[in-house]
Amino acid sequence: MSQKDLSSLRVNKERLMKDIHDTCEWGKGERYGEHETETGMSRLSLSDTDKQARDWFHETTTALGCKVHVDAMGNQFAVRPGLNNDAPPTYAGSHLDTQPTGGRYDGILGVTAAVEMLRVLNDNWVETAYPIGVVNWTNEEGARFPMSMVASGVWSGDIPVEKAHNLKSVIPSNDTATMKSELERIGYLGSTPCSWESTPMAAHFELHIEQGPILEAEERRIGVVQGVQSYKWFTVTVKGRDSHTGATSFAHRADALLTTSKMIIASHKIAAKHGALASTGILNLKPGSTNTVPGWVQFSLDIRSPQDETVEKVEKECKAAFSALAAGDDFMNISSDCPPSTRHCTVEWRTDFISPATHFHADCISCVQSAGQDLCGSGQVKGKDIGSWGKLMTSGAGHDSVYASKRCPTTMVFVPCRDGVSHNPAEYSAPEACADGADVLLGAVVRYDKLRGQR
Amino acid sequence: MSQKDLSSLRVNKERLMKDIHDTCEWGKGERYGEHETETGMSRLSLSDTDKQARDWFHETTTALGCKVHVDAMGNQFAVRPGLNNDAPPTYAGSHLDTQPTGGRYDGILGVTAAVEMLRVLNDNWVETAYPIGVVNWTNEEGARFPMSMVASGVWSGDIPVEKAHNLKSVIPSNDTATMKSELERIGYLGSTPCSWESTPMAAHFELHIEQGPILEAEERRIGVVQGVQSYKWFTVTVKGRDSHTGATSFAHRADALLTTSKMIIASHKIAAKHGALASTGILNLKPGSTNTVPGWVQFSLDIRSPQDETVEKVEKECKAAFSALAAGDDFMNISSDCPPSTRHCTVEWRTDFISPATHFHADCISCVQSAGQDLCGSGQVKGKDIGSWGKLMTSGAGHDSVYASKRCPTTMVFVPCRDGVSHNPAEYSAPEACADGADVLLGAVVRYDKLRGQR
Ligand SMILES: NC(=O)NCCC(=O)O
Ligand SMILES: NC(=O)NCCC(=O)O
Repeated sequence: MSQKDLSSLRVNKERLMKDIHDTCEWGKGERYGEHETETGMSRLSLSDTDKQARDWFHETTTALGCKVHVDAMGNQFAVRPGLNNDAPPTYAGSHLDTQPTGGRYDGILGVTAAVEMLRVLNDNWVETAYPIGVVNWTNEEGARFPMSMVASGVWSGDIPVEKAHNLKSVIPSNDTATMKSELERIGYLGSTPCSWESTPMAAHFELHIEQGPILEAEERRIGVVQGVQSYKWFTVTVKGRDSHTGATSFAHRADALLTTSKMIIASHKIAAKHGALASTGILNLKPGSTNTVPGWVQFSLDIRSPQDETVEKVEKECKAAFSALAAGDDFMNISSDCPPSTRHCTVEWRTDFISPATHFHADCISCVQSAGQDLCGSGQVKGKDIGSWGKLMTSGAGHDSVYASKRCPTTMVFVPCRDGVSHNPAEYSAPEACADGADVLLGAVVRYDKLRGQR
Repeated sequence: MSQKDLSSLRVNKERLMKDIHDTCEWGKGERYGEHETETGMSRLSLSDTDKQARDWFHETTTALGCKVHVDAMGNQFAVRPGLNNDAPPTYAGSHLDTQPTGGRYDGILGVTAAVEMLRVLNDNWVETAYPIGVVNWTNEEGARFPMSMVASGVWSGDIPVEKAHNLKSVIPSNDTATMKSELERIGYLGSTPCSWESTPMAAHFELHIEQGPILEAEERRIGVVQGVQSYKWFTVTVKGRDSHTGATSFAHRADALLTTSKMIIASHKIAAKHGALASTGILNLKPGSTNTVPGWVQFSLDIRSPQDETVEKVEKECKAAFSALAAGDDFMNISSDCPPSTRHCTVEWRTDFISPATHFHADCISCVQSAGQDLCGSGQVKGKDIGSWGKLMTSGAGHDSVYASKRCPTTMVFVPCRDGVSHNPAEYSAPEACADGADVLLGAVVRYDKLRGQR
């Protein structure tokens, strides 16, 4: 097949959608509509249904002629040989685990599109210069084992394997399993060490739904991802004093939940001021009784911005604001008409996760852009816009590509999702959008392989 | 013993404190200090430890010469005969169950002081005109079976016994027991129907710790309780949309937790404006993941005021405010610097419990006042103050006396507790305060018996 022909390779949309929906039988979640595919997903990492999806990945890629291996974090690597197999493969991939109430596209699209890429290469008897790999990263979501992108983080050398193996399941809440015990239980504790040295990659391409509303709102088909914004996760603990709701005047309360409410609002104000994001997704309190003012609240705080410095600024200002609010100083006027209390709360912070701003590789980005141009018609870059079809963008969410990019040239391809909704059963990307993304993924990988061949 | 002597009867402080601390071995809670009695209590209603406390009540009062019976709600009634046993007894009592993280005095003081009253009457060979009873009401806290004062509510005819029997345990959260199944399991499903007709009371006196800071702050020994404030409990559900914290701008969020935070602050502002109380003690959210904006929050709202009309007003204003806040109308300026969102939440209210304002009986109140005067030195009522020792007050918290008062003359005696703290392991009333209260309880019951004899 000539190089010209290679750039005209296209995926089979129906086959891709069939892979998505067939594999989504394992771990089907909440129904949100009438159609048989209108359910979300609940396929927690290393659960029985995740094992079924993994087995499918193994069998399918093996049948497509790949050599498949599994590493000590359960990451699955399927490699289709090229003409020269002494150099590392160019990889495409993502993850097959989901949020507890997630959808059918987050992660899943990236893996199934990479498998579809293998099918297209086989159907067209394509011989690549170097091997082409497909990867399924373990526990990207961090929903069950509370550290997102943990398995690519071990691969890149950023997270010690022991730390990852010892992570305890947080869903269901009475589960005592660890990552290691679950990897063993479902037969995916691989013998290959989990590292970029044992499983080197020449490059890493990841197709993903945008998980935000920009592409849809601007009617763009493809997001060319230049990097990932910086983010930091914290656990904040507010301690006040349990007291009786009926017998304790406002002035005598140290209400940890009222104080937390002010903190949540303050974090939004501060983030908004800096054009950043602040979010609280988890909140627990004690003792949890209608007639007891809670003396203890713990909540998560997720701060994001494209700039590391902005995340630091928001963190710093939130720390100052939370301390003031805990001490009864409502300097932001959030609750100006509440009578002040003579009793105060204390606040403690714990940093759980830091993901500095990531900048992807120019070579990978230009392969994606060229594949997009070929699919959608050419277009110049003007500011962030690429013709009318594409957009240069920064990912709001972290992805395994963050860690991959530390050890090899990397980028991502985004496609629009309905209403920007993700981490939600109703998450949806149209078949056309899925196929667009898969076409660009395929085109970018093939282009990168050619680039390597030319060097 | 002459009537003059009767008014000089005093309890044995050491014996009373021994009863409190001995019985608190059953269901001992969190330690908060070094001393062996410096632990809280966790004696949930109808648990194994509640059974131990009940067995103690039965054995102790039987040994003191009482006839004891148990009704269909597990309420225990111990009756010491008087000269005329054809009329109902004058009762003193309270409850032996505690909050999950409660203290050693809430309820327990009222029952142990009533038992101490029996001991004093026996020690002094006192013959009362009518029988004297001691009652231990079941599940006053409503902590395990989520309806406070439920067993006195069945007794008064306000709550159907089937409804009470079918209440499901909420602690521990995976418990499937009902009140009836637990009453049966621990052997306290009595054969007497639970009603004021089957177990009539001539009057009901209840000693309790104040659970608030007023008596301590004003250095008063005794609170003479004129009534109980009005309160209403609600469950509020806020629905927004789950979305990704990193990829969803503030403008695209329908953040149920941010909206709830505003509602909690709004409820405080509104209550403060009316001199009322509003409190949130329970808050649950879904899905509960650091990187997902919560699309669902449910929280409790407890509104209180001495006036029924004020509770209604606060409820009405909160309903209007919550609807506005859910619809994105921040008319209270709580989060003025947050960029507005184009997506909104919905809010639903459920009323869980209504306890209208309660006014206690003048005869009972004057017996308490007279007993207080005798103990503490005389004093005139000036406004709310009774000399320097006492205070006329309205109870902030509901008590079984609320329901008792619907079927018989009733009042309560309050004693100060440290820092106003209750529903907390560190809840504490000094032995002197406990003895003061028990002395006044004894004095009031003896006076009420005398009053009945004279009529
Ligand atoms: N895509 C995704 O949900 N990644 C998890 C890490 C994050 O919250 O950004
Ligand atoms: N005393 C007490 O805690 N009673 C329960 C009902 C209430 O919350 O007022």
